[in-house]
Amino acid sequence: MTSYSSPAVPRSLAPERLRRGPNLVFCMVGLPARGKSYIGRKIVRYLNWLGHEAQVFNVGQYRRSKLGERKDHTFFDPDNDEAVKGRRAMAHLALDDMFGWLKKRGEVAVYDATNTTRARRAIIAERCAAEGVRLVFIETISDSPEIIEANIRATKLHSPDYAGMDPEEAARDFRMRIAHYRRAYEPVEAERLSWMKVVEDKQLVLNRVDGEVPSKVVRLLMALRHRKVRHFWLTRHGESLANVEGRIGGDPGLSSQGRAFAERLAEHFERVEPQPTQVWTSTLERTKITASYLHALPASVSRRDLDEIQAGACDGMTYEEIREKMPEEFAARHADKARYRYPRGESYLDVIARVEPVVLEIERGNDPLLIVGHQAALRTLYGYFRGERAEACPQLQLPLHWLVEMLPTPQGHDERRTYLGPEPLSAGRAGASSDFPVKT
Amino acid sequence: MTSYSSPAVPRSLAPERLRRGPNLVFCMVGLPARGKSYIGRKIVRYLNWLGHEAQVFNVGQYRRSKLGERKDHTFFDPDNDEAVKGRRAMAHLALDDMFGWLKKRGEVAVYDATNTTRARRAIIAERCAAEGVRLVFIETISDSPEIIEANIRATKLHSPDYAGMDPEEAARDFRMRIAHYRRAYEPVEAERLSWMKVVEDKQLVLNRVDGEVPSKVVRLLMALRHRKVRHFWLTRHGESLANVEGRIGGDPGLSSQGRAFAERLAEHFERVEPQPTQVWTSTLERTKITASYLHALPASVSRRDLDEIQAGACDGMTYEEIREKMPEEFAARHADKARYRYPRGESYLDVIARVEPVVLEIERGNDPLLIVGHQAALRTLYGYFRGERAEACPQLQLPLHWLVEMLPTPQGHDERRTYLGPEPLSAGRAGASSDFPVKT
Repeated sequence: MTSYSSPAVPRSLAPERLRRGPNLVFCMVGLPARGKSYIGRKIVRYLNWLGHEAQVFNVGQYRRSKLGERKDHTFFDPDNDEAVKGRRAMAHLALDDMFGWLKKRGEVAVYDATNTTRARRAIIAERCAAEGVRLVFIETISDSPEIIEANIRATKLHSPDYAGMDPEEAARDFRMRIAHYRRAYEPVEAERLSWMKVVEDKQLVLNRVDGEVPSKVVRLLMALRHRKVRHFWLTRHGESLANVEGRIGGDPGLSSQGRAFAERLAEHFERVEPQPTQVWTSTLERTKITASYLHALPASVSRRDLDEIQAGACDGMTYEEIREKMPEEFAARHADKARYRYPRGESYLDVIARVEPVVLEIERGNDPLLIVGHQAALRTLYGYFRGERAEACPQLQLPLHWLVEMLPTPQGHDERRTYLGPEPLSAGRAGASSDFPVKT
Repeated sequence: MTSYSSPAVPRSLAPERLRRGPNLVFCMVGLPARGKSYIGRKIVRYLNWLGHEAQVFNVGQYRRSKLGERKDHTFFDPDNDEAVKGRRAMAHLALDDMFGWLKKRGEVAVYDATNTTRARRAIIAERCAAEGVRLVFIETISDSPEIIEANIRATKLHSPDYAGMDPEEAARDFRMRIAHYRRAYEPVEAERLSWMKVVEDKQLVLNRVDGEVPSKVVRLLMALRHRKVRHFWLTRHGESLANVEGRIGGDPGLSSQGRAFAERLAEHFERVEPQPTQVWTSTLERTKITASYLHALPASVSRRDLDEIQAGACDGMTYEEIREKMPEEFAARHADKARYRYPRGESYLDVIARVEPVVLEIERGNDPLLIVGHQAALRTLYGYFRGERAEACPQLQLPLHWLVEMLPTPQGHDERRTYLGPEPLSAGRAGASSDFPVKT
């Protein structure tokens, strides 16, 4: 295979910018217990995972840390002048910090507070205009007593504001707090501004919303619509012949140990409850062979978006060979593992972009799902569900012959790891794993 | 470079399904001249390009072909019993054809008619439920007299209904037609149904919209929001050293003729008006070198999503070598060029999925843009703007050393091709082009 590389031009650390256009603020709007913080955190997590610089600025946290916790509902009464002053000061403090951060290194901020009055929103809009920052309001709306009550019990009663208080009393106090806000509530209406309204799991209204990041957030909000959290499992293929030789890439079959793992995986899934009703693999042999052992489960679907990171010119090489023959590549990879792109191959950031539709599909769906994948591609997918930033993904630990179960919780997932074994032939050797030599 | 291929398992024609889940009907709703057909056509075009089986069923066309053209406004009067009967019959005829097509081979249908009454929409909803087809209403809303008048003049006056008629008289008649519909208009409100409302370029309301295809359509509608049509240019890199040898893939520099082309391209862009304010290349040398000659234009941005189709195991081979050494791959490629995937490389469908965000970015933006790309990747991009289906993309003609200018029109783009030359060294030789041997 001839390769026409131009060694004069360094290929690594491609300078593609993720940042195109001005900084952006998503300003949450809505009564307490309408899911503002949940949505705000999900947005920040998603954008950080995609490689953007995003952060939540939560006014409630400022209030608790500066003015003290355990404020009862009277503190939120709009007629309590003293408290109004204090709360306004906290809102401004959070705004100052937010714009300071945006100026320094931030890209997308979520300003998380009720922001339920037109006057408060006007202050934020003016600051954004003055700082040249784009502003999108996200209003969360719910009139369903069941949803609101469930929100209060799932999250608010665990707030430091109610530490040690009787749950019934705390819930009563929180309902009074909501009532104070409702008296002053003015929904977002300004036709000329950019805003979204999220009405429970039913409706999404987009007013003058465009641009790349807001469009991505719309996709995320659509995928999160149901707030169902999916039960799923992640595992790498059984050890491959390339793993044994310490070579990256390729399309090898399994080692004897890898086949033994596939058998143990199959036995495991004869016993678990619930059982996966879907099995996804990549298009590469080692995942399809592994899944072919799972006789108790539905036939697997092979997806190219789950393929392993493309090693390009380094495909088929050992880690030691790369260090010897391509020392500059070796060094560049160590300098920035997330952004480093193999010559004519992929970077972790490239893999994140490719895996993103898979992540949203997992968020959207509800059937128990097993994914048989590869080290780098699964690291990115797993990283999203663990709330990791793009830079952290290359360091996540997903060793061979382990099964990772992602268990639904109200806020996301817990994980349970099971070592199925047997010990890979490559165990303990540096550079043994299929793409990155991380100690497992 | 070692390769661990498993020759026992055929790698081509990967059976990944594009169809997941039930068939789908998008039912347009809205008064005449609100952009229903424009949006319906854009949706079908986009889905066909992505590889889905989509089609518009336009009741107006049935009416014109079965009941005759040149109906004046009285035909649309809800009190004209005879006409109401005829129009209802046409609506049912289109529905019958649509469900017949969905049963046979269709996947996504757009049912394009006013559908402005609750009764008419109930009939469609019942049929969809009976046939197990998902239904999403798309209502287009505009109260701006300027937008409506512009729509009438840009499209309706060119309808066969008004052939040969004085434009003023035709516009008057069409306004009367709108008035008839307005009398019976009932906006979509049903909270339990799935619907979108497109309010001019301002608002998009999504009610119970989810699933993969509807989510894609939301992204498209957001990108189309402004209805600005972008002026852009496409060209391949100057002839590469691999083109001269007839090899695919690689990362070669330019031949002498390729460099001469880059000079001519630069001269050309010193003269044109408007000038591109953005230049995009792939991450591969041949496009970056070509763009480096364009001193009159802004510095280029290199994008991995514009890279050439990955030839995987065939990278660096000539077309003749593939035929000799991998006859099964050669045959599979000829059997289905759009779906054929190079072993451990990409198919045209893979490239379409990769290029799709670029296409939406072009739709969203408005700055004149020059793209210096590659044969296969540009074929897919160009295919979208020419309204081609996925299957047709591999046959589109984009020879070396030609410039394709995409000129905005009210409905999309016209194109103007300019041969800049010089003649590539590889001219006339089969297999000379960088990925597919199509006669140019």
